[in-house]
Amino acid sequence: MQLITLTTDFGTRDWFVGTMKGVILGLNGRARLVDITHELPAGDLRAGAFALAASYRYFPKGTIHVVVVDPGVGSQRKAIAVQTAAYSFVGPDNGVLSWALRTEAIQAIHSLENPKYFRHPVSRTFHGRDIFAPVAAHLSRGVSLLELGPAQADLVRLNWPQPVIAGQSVQGEVVYIDRFGNAITNIEEATLGDLKAQAWQVFLGRKRLCALAACYQAVPSGHPVAVAGSSRFLEIAINSGTAAQDLGLRIGQKVTVRVVSA
Amino acid sequence: MQLITLTTDFGTRDWFVGTMKGVILGLNGRARLVDITHELPAGDLRAGAFALAASYRYFPKGTIHVVVVDPGVGSQRKAIAVQTAAYSFVGPDNGVLSWALRTEAIQAIHSLENPKYFRHPVSRTFHGRDIFAPVAAHLSRGVSLLELGPAQADLVRLNWPQPVIAGQSVQGEVVYIDRFGNAITNIEEATLGDLKAQAWQVFLGRKRLCALAACYQAVPSGHPVAVAGSSRFLEIAINSGTAAQDLGLRIGQKVTVRVVSA
Amino acid sequence: MQLITLTTDFGTRDWFVGTMKGVILGLNGRARLVDITHELPAGDLRAGAFALAASYRYFPKGTIHVVVVDPGVGSQRKAIAVQTAAYSFVGPDNGVLSWALRTEAIQAIHSLENPKYFRHPVSRTFHGRDIFAPVAAHLSRGVSLLELGPAQADLVRLNWPQPVIAGQSVQGEVVYIDRFGNAITNIEEATLGDLKAQAWQVFLGRKRLCALAACYQAVPSGHPVAVAGSSRFLEIAINSGTAAQDLGLRIGQKVTVRVVSA
Repeated sequence: MQLITLTTDFGTRDWFVGTMKGVILGLNGRARLVDITHELPAGDLRAGAFALAASYRYFPKGTIHVVVVDPGVGSQRKAIAVQTAAYSFVGPDNGVLSWALRTEAIQAIHSLENPKYFRHPVSRTFHGRDIFAPVAAHLSRGVSLLELGPAQADLVRLNWPQPVIAGQSVQGEVVYIDRFGNAITNIEEATLGDLKAQAWQVFLGRKRLCALAACYQAVPSGHPVAVAGSSRFLEIAINSGTAAQDLGLRIGQKVTVRVVSA
Repeated sequence: MQLITLTTDFGTRDWFVGTMKGVILGLNGRARLVDITHELPAGDLRAGAFALAASYRYFPKGTIHVVVVDPGVGSQRKAIAVQTAAYSFVGPDNGVLSWALRTEAIQAIHSLENPKYFRHPVSRTFHGRDIFAPVAAHLSRGVSLLELGPAQADLVRLNWPQPVIAGQSVQGEVVYIDRFGNAITNIEEATLGDLKAQAWQVFLGRKRLCALAACYQAVPSGHPVAVAGSSRFLEIAINSGTAAQDLGLRIGQKVTVRVVSA
Repeated sequence: MQLITLTTDFGTRDWFVGTMKGVILGLNGRARLVDITHELPAGDLRAGAFALAASYRYFPKGTIHVVVVDPGVGSQRKAIAVQTAAYSFVGPDNGVLSWALRTEAIQAIHSLENPKYFRHPVSRTFHGRDIFAPVAAHLSRGVSLLELGPAQADLVRLNWPQPVIAGQSVQGEVVYIDRFGNAITNIEEATLGDLKAQAWQVFLGRKRLCALAACYQAVPSGHPVAVAGSSRFLEIAINSGTAAQDLGLRIGQKVTVRVVSA
């Protein structure tokens, strides 16, 4: 199986994603295609970076992850392919790949410069179709990264907001809001470590919001709760509600978790 | 072919559905995946139950239908797999499977308890990825329901609002509103039986709305019409319009069909 | 590979597209399915015609393109299959196929009348599932167009608004607005031909809007720009903005491009 995933901000109401798939299947009729999402906010590199980081590791070894959030298409930004032990990543070199690669050991990064692997004529506005799709298809057929263009030492990296740990207090922030209105923070479950059994409380500024619990339904319907979400990060939810909307949470908002003694 | 369908309320703007597919294809690279919908209203068991009931029978024998509308994820609700003559069904035991199974002969129901067929660690908030997806993948590879966990005699069933027939009058209600604004009722085409040729009229309360017709275009553009819809139920539409919005129809609203003598 | 694409206005929140796929895979388990879009505005033949015209040629030879925008379903409108050198097209004969076929050499057009290739019973409201899906599946298995029904000489054609060229001035109009708010016109890149190097300026009425450029980022963020878009037509964009909304552009709005001497 030659699995290729697609993550873009192209939406699904036009034909953009469909044509990328047509180009890929025209080059490799055996490729299997999986959409991660196409509804990233237009040009939102952080949303794309988080979605990829939250999903890439659930795919089988050998999967090629193509990400196209590309506000600089047609300008001087580079396009790259990145190889790790288990996966290949293809996309613009604008940081959108960098959060998934934060904890992966990178084996090689190559700049996509060899026009042999592009679709021609290459448009100035749709490299998803003309560069990223055909490069992914060629990779899925066994073309080596070496043939795609010159190696480069690193990729553009988006700043990852590292939570601040001080004693039994961790200060983080909201990094993603999902379709259920759950506000996902940058505080990893592992950070809370052995202390999980204790009485962790979540604060927005000085205001105590809720306690940590095992699942949404640990609190009555309509009440806030913090849980270790499926992407391994602490998230703030409302049981049967939409926390971000109901509590006015936004990306970047500070969240503090600390042990409160009885 | 090993066909698996997915019906959820996960939406398509995050990575949830994509990761379910990654997990399935990692276990069975030959599985074929078809999305029924992922845009069910969050936590709406009745919408999920109706969507599955309206679609499952159009898939080939052997298809595995996975449904994840799961507001109780992580709580004590059970997860089940159900076998009928033609299909397998996998989902939470909260009623979401029950309308599709209303008229199917059930051969076996097993509770999903054998961790051998789960993805580990099992999160508390995303059983779609960690339980339902891997169980479906294992079923598609030939694992028997017997291995998944203990048999149970029945499943949780949502109440199906049975229409009331009195002489040449049938009282039902709106059970689903589709993307075109068509209001689908619980009145099956077959209920109107031989009487179809007669002058059936549709009433909202005491107010006559429209007559039965063969297709939307039987009335002028902008006019209401009742037709036997593609899911075999009577539906109220407006030719080239959106009936539910324009007529203020809501789920649960009573609809009466009766023969009006000239 | 037997590739079938689907372009509809069915949306993705109901089960309509899923059941079409179930029907196809039940008839040909080896078919590969690609969604172009399902979010065309309900009943909008021009949007469907443009989406198909913009995408069909990026698929490999032999692809079967199924388009269902079908406000007249169940009425007297015909259903057709069209053969060109590289592709087959299947859909209602209401013009939705006609813009893709504007510049293709048609080899045959057959009316879909042979019930042998339909799914039964054929509903009056969902020919996507009962006629177009099974016909496409049969075509993908090698059934000849000749078997589907009688040949016809031409298909219903939507008027294509031809731009008016007068000296060094081209007057066209907006024909599609994409998800990014880019307003795509009917002015083909090739029309501007050799003159591309010159100082083409874009006007809305008498008001100069912007100049032609190679990519969105040729202007500062928030500024309007006209580029040769990926579908080969001139499009009006705002760098990092949504031109149609911000500039109040609508389908049908006149756009003039002319050379302005310094």
